[in-house]
Amino acid sequence: MSSTSSLKAFMNEYKMLVEEELDRYVQRLEAPPIIKEAMTYSLQAGGKRIRPVLLFATIQAFNKDPKKGLPVACALEMIHTYSLIHDDLPSMDDDDLRRGKPTNHKVFGEAYAILAGDALLTNSFQIITEIGELPPRVLLKLLNELSKAAGPEGMVGGQVADIEGENKQLTVENLEYIHIHKTGKLLAYSVIAGAIIAEAYQEDIENLKEFAYHIGLAFQIQDDILDIEGSQEKIGKPIGSDEAKFKSTYPALLTLEGAKEKLYYHLSKGNEVLDRLEIQSEYLQQIAYLIANRDH
Amino acid sequence: MSSTSSLKAFMNEYKMLVEEELDRYVQRLEAPPIIKEAMTYSLQAGGKRIRPVLLFATIQAFNKDPKKGLPVACALEMIHTYSLIHDDLPSMDDDDLRRGKPTNHKVFGEAYAILAGDALLTNSFQIITEIGELPPRVLLKLLNELSKAAGPEGMVGGQVADIEGENKQLTVENLEYIHIHKTGKLLAYSVIAGAIIAEAYQEDIENLKEFAYHIGLAFQIQDDILDIEGSQEKIGKPIGSDEAKFKSTYPALLTLEGAKEKLYYHLSKGNEVLDRLEIQSEYLQQIAYLIANRDH
Repeated sequence: MSSTSSLKAFMNEYKMLVEEELDRYVQRLEAPPIIKEAMTYSLQAGGKRIRPVLLFATIQAFNKDPKKGLPVACALEMIHTYSLIHDDLPSMDDDDLRRGKPTNHKVFGEAYAILAGDALLTNSFQIITEIGELPPRVLLKLLNELSKAAGPEGMVGGQVADIEGENKQLTVENLEYIHIHKTGKLLAYSVIAGAIIAEAYQEDIENLKEFAYHIGLAFQIQDDILDIEGSQEKIGKPIGSDEAKFKSTYPALLTLEGAKEKLYYHLSKGNEVLDRLEIQSEYLQQIAYLIANRDH
Repeated sequence: MSSTSSLKAFMNEYKMLVEEELDRYVQRLEAPPIIKEAMTYSLQAGGKRIRPVLLFATIQAFNKDPKKGLPVACALEMIHTYSLIHDDLPSMDDDDLRRGKPTNHKVFGEAYAILAGDALLTNSFQIITEIGELPPRVLLKLLNELSKAAGPEGMVGGQVADIEGENKQLTVENLEYIHIHKTGKLLAYSVIAGAIIAEAYQEDIENLKEFAYHIGLAFQIQDDILDIEGSQEKIGKPIGSDEAKFKSTYPALLTLEGAKEKLYYHLSKGNEVLDRLEIQSEYLQQIAYLIANRDH
C-alpha cells in the first residue's frame, strides 16, 4: 500500500468516525426536535472534514492514539458548521446553496438557522468540558485556544473584516487579515489542539502554529483559484461567484499565476517547518499537498 | 442602615464593577473596531444586572469574597446580552426597541448584530478559561454548567420552543417549558456558579438549583404581569405587546389573579429552600422579593 493510499484510508476511517459521533452527540440532546434536525442537516451535509483530519494527523504525528481527539474533532466540526450556517444567512453572504444542497435557512427558515448555529457553537464547548479521559488543565487549554480561534479575535473578527471589505478594493494585506482570521485560526486550532491532546512541548506547538498558518493561507488561495478554474459540480456552487460579488481574491489582486506562486510559497514554507520537527509528519505533509492540489 | 438599603448598596457597588469590567474586556480585544462597538452598545445598554447580582449574593451567602465572581458575572452578562441581540432580530421577535433604545440590528444592521452576538457568546467562554485564581477543575465545572444552561438543552432550546409556540394556544406546561429553558436556566446558572466558586457542597448546590428554579419562574410571571400592569416608560417597551403578538402568557392562561397567586407560590417555595440551608441567605431572600415586586 502506497503512503498516499494509506493516508486516504486514515482519512476515510476518521471521517466516518467523526460523522457517526457527531450524529450521536446531537441525537443525545434533550432539545426540541426541530433544532436537532436543523443542527444535523448541516453537520451531515458532507464536506471534507479537513479540520478533524488535521487534528487526528497531528496526534498521530506524536505517536499517540488519534481516537483521543474524537470529541474535539466533533467540537471543531460543530464550530465550523455554525460559522457556515451564519455566513450563508441573507444578511451575510445570502447563499442559497452550500455543497450543492440548499443552505440551512432555505430549509428551516432564518430563525432556526440562527439558533442552530448558536446551539452548535455552545454545544462544542460543552463537548470539550465533558472529556473525562484528559486532565482538567489540558481541557482548559483546549477550551481557551478554541474560544480565541473562534471568537472576535479569530473567526468572528475575520468575518467582520470580510463584510467590511465587500465592494472595496482591498490590498493583499487586507485580504490576508481576513483569511488568517476567518478560516486560518480555526484550521490552526485543529493542529494546535492535536498537539495539546498529544501533550506536546510548547516549542513544538509554536512550530505547528506556523505550519498551520501557511497551510491555512494555502487553503484559502486554492479556494480562490478554484472559483476560477474549478467545476461547479465539484465545488457545489457556481463558478465565478466571487467575481460576480466583486469580492477581492488572490487571483484578482495578484493574477492567476501570481496566486499560484503564492500558494506554492506557503506550501513549501509549511513543509520547511515540518522538516524542523522531530515528529512523524508524513500525513501532515501529504494533507498539506492535498490542500494545495484539491479540486473542490 | 436597614438591611434593604444594605442590599441596594451591595447591588449598586457590584453593578458598577461589572459594567466597568465588561467595558475593559471588550476594549482589550484585538478585533475590528465595529464589532467592539456593537458588543459594547448592547452590553452597556443598562439592565438590572440581575444575574451578576444573584451570583455575587450567592458567593457572599457562603462567606466568600463576592469579587471572586467578577469574571463569571461578566461572562453571564455577555451570554445574556447575546441572547437579547439574537432574539430581537427581524427573523425572531423583530423588536425595534430594547430598554428604550434602538435594538442592536437597528443601529449596526443585521449582519453585525448576529456577529456581535456570536462574539459575545464565544468570548464569555474565553473569559472563564482565563480565570487564574480558581483551580482548573472548578473552571471546568463552571464552563460545563454554563454551556448546558445556554445551549440547546437550555436557553437556545427555550427560544426554539418559544418560536414554535407563537400563534398557538399553549398549556401552562408548554409555557413553563419555555420559561424554564429560555430564562430559567441562565438565572439558575447565576446561583449555581456562585456556589461552585464558593466551593459549596454538591447538596447545597442542588438546593440552590431548586431555589433558582422557583425565582426564575417568579421572574417570568412578573414579566408577564408587567406587560399588563406596568408602565411603558419603566419597562422600556410598549405595554400590551405580548397580547398584540398573540403570545401565551400566565395572565392569559390563568387570569391576572391566578398569575399573581402562582408568582407568590414560587416566591414562597424559593424561600422555603433558603430556610433549609445553613448559609447567610438574607440578600438572596431580598433579591427574590425584589424580583417578584419589581416594576420594570
